[in-house]
Amino acid sequence: MSVTHPQGFSATGLAIGLKSSGNADLALVQNLGPSTAAAVVFTSNRAKANPIIWSQQVIADGVVSAIVLNSGGANCYTGSRGFQVTHATAEAVAAKLSVSAGDVLVCSTGLIGDQLPLDKLLTGIHAATLSVEGGADAALAIMTTDSRPKTAIVDRDGWSLGGMAKGAGMLAPGLATMLVVITTDANLPSAALDAALREATRVSFDRLDSDGCMSTNDQVSLLASGASGIAPTQAEFTAAVIEICRNLALQLQGDAEGASHDITIETVGARSEDDAVEVGRSVARNNLFKAAVFGNDPNWGRVLAAVGTTQAEFDPYDIDVSINGVMVCRSGEPGESRDLIDLTPRAVHVLIDLKVADATATVLTNDLTHDYVHENSAYAS
Amino acid sequence: MSVTHPQGFSATGLAIGLKSSGNADLALVQNLGPSTAAAVVFTSNRAKANPIIWSQQVIADGVVSAIVLNSGGANCYTGSRGFQVTHATAEAVAAKLSVSAGDVLVCSTGLIGDQLPLDKLLTGIHAATLSVEGGADAALAIMTTDSRPKTAIVDRDGWSLGGMAKGAGMLAPGLATMLVVITTDANLPSAALDAALREATRVSFDRLDSDGCMSTNDQVSLLASGASGIAPTQAEFTAAVIEICRNLALQLQGDAEGASHDITIETVGARSEDDAVEVGRSVARNNLFKAAVFGNDPNWGRVLAAVGTTQAEFDPYDIDVSINGVMVCRSGEPGESRDLIDLTPRAVHVLIDLKVADATATVLTNDLTHDYVHENSAYAS
Repeated sequence: MSVTHPQGFSATGLAIGLKSSGNADLALVQNLGPSTAAAVVFTSNRAKANPIIWSQQVIADGVVSAIVLNSGGANCYTGSRGFQVTHATAEAVAAKLSVSAGDVLVCSTGLIGDQLPLDKLLTGIHAATLSVEGGADAALAIMTTDSRPKTAIVDRDGWSLGGMAKGAGMLAPGLATMLVVITTDANLPSAALDAALREATRVSFDRLDSDGCMSTNDQVSLLASGASGIAPTQAEFTAAVIEICRNLALQLQGDAEGASHDITIETVGARSEDDAVEVGRSVARNNLFKAAVFGNDPNWGRVLAAVGTTQAEFDPYDIDVSINGVMVCRSGEPGESRDLIDLTPRAVHVLIDLKVADATATVLTNDLTHDYVHENSAYAS
Repeated sequence: MSVTHPQGFSATGLAIGLKSSGNADLALVQNLGPSTAAAVVFTSNRAKANPIIWSQQVIADGVVSAIVLNSGGANCYTGSRGFQVTHATAEAVAAKLSVSAGDVLVCSTGLIGDQLPLDKLLTGIHAATLSVEGGADAALAIMTTDSRPKTAIVDRDGWSLGGMAKGAGMLAPGLATMLVVITTDANLPSAALDAALREATRVSFDRLDSDGCMSTNDQVSLLASGASGIAPTQAEFTAAVIEICRNLALQLQGDAEGASHDITIETVGARSEDDAVEVGRSVARNNLFKAAVFGNDPNWGRVLAAVGTTQAEFDPYDIDVSINGVMVCRSGEPGESRDLIDLTPRAVHVLIDLKVADATATVLTNDLTHDYVHENSAYAS
């Protein structure tokens, strides 16, 4: 059900010919109210796609009536003509749903540098039929190289959240990453939504770094219909948003392009959370370590070489590293034998103890595989 | 001839059983004087190998009589026992050559986290025979995953430089990278050598970023015998050191693990050289772009997405990107067709014009290939 699980939302997904495969490539989600409060976080990439630029204007007043998403083209580095396509798309959705174009978010995903065919978008939007059963179709339509749709729901007492996500490559966050739409029938103002969403993305999507490549089109949107009539506390609501964001982030990690391992890098004993995140991200971006995991080779020296490139506080002579429970480096010296480590399961756990203070952070990544190289060597052609 | 090309140096390379292949794995270079001035730059990785820690003490007075290098083990994260091995190695070389152990640099390269067999090192050093013809053997003995030795010479009027380098993976600089020894018979004090070497590494090895992974053992050493009796000007000497460093850096790029393309990323029109380097390095570390080049796919959107993650000054609506002479992005919009680009040659040239000011920088990298993943998935095992 994804985004139509909470009360007060309709959605659809359909094929309009943007993808050469003929698969669904346009999704629409409408907030039926009574509230139209919303919050959005965007990529921090300074090369922002046209739909990002448009959506940043839309969310300024905290009101969103609908969101339209297309796969099959990113509409990025497409100039003023590309922006006109985004604008016309929002206008068409507004006319279709009898809402204001200024309350319509637009998201695009696909190849950078190609113009989207506006005629196909307009025809598709005109033909769309939204329903309260349409969440699953919407989740299918936003897929690019994803092998499966990603949806999640969180139920609370009388209110709920629903979400869908797409993203398989170019997965490294700069606030948000990939495209995510979360809906709720809780009744909260946009400021409360915004606070919850920023806290949740910070500890979920922002901690996912599959391949170190930040997208130009990332957007995470949270729409609240208020249809349950229930206003949870900020803490209750934030916890629920964190839960659904973490669920979706794990699904993104599990479907990352070409990956054969899901690597969880847990850094403990750090001076600060920032230090712990920097250490985790440095390991997550180390191609040598990621290739070693692909080969089921517990080359822990590459973990320490990556930690050494950070500014985090640590003593190279008093650091512990464990892989899947085997402490291969103890106080900066060889510990248990690397031969004790079994890397055949998909899940890999790297535990780095900086032994400085009490801060922790967990960063999620994937291994570097032949299939990753293969998939990304022939995306545009 | 490599390091024995200039007057006043002897060298050797031999097999002492550190490598399971039985190939040569120990190199020695002696400065026969009359001068023993030297300069060294080291990795900026905070996880420093034991030979780095030792060599930083040796170079403090600017005097170096000899350098001993081993492949087959990095002697990093090997604790106090590992440092004792480094110290004993320097002492053995000192006894062999009748010099002070405090004037013997030590370099190690290979797997992190394994102890080196001191008995083999001591036996090997005792058996070594240095000669003024030994430069080629030394260059062979420092190879790890290198497919060929890297040597270079620069001849000037009455004085010269000779150099050898090893490095094929974990190639990203943090002052120096990989192991490099440069010799000269010019007669200059260590301060002049140091100034020349820092300027040269800044624009050569520091601009090589094959795989984004900074080593724990990088060291570039410059030894001057003064045997020519000639003291070139600082400018003349620096230019010669830059020439030999660039030559060796290109050889390292050309032999990078698994690479099928040598990518030159030239950034022009930048506000500062730092901006230009940041832009080039960001593109050089973008796995998606590097995989696309491997597939001969000119996916220029990935270049722009990488530029967008930097702090460099640029306007996303006024940036040009050319690949092999085809301007695929002009003023932030699609330019010439990507179909005009031929990526079948090994050399790839990416030109990024930020159109802000006049600063430039060139960063060298490689593509991301199946062979890179394969080689690095099974290094330790």
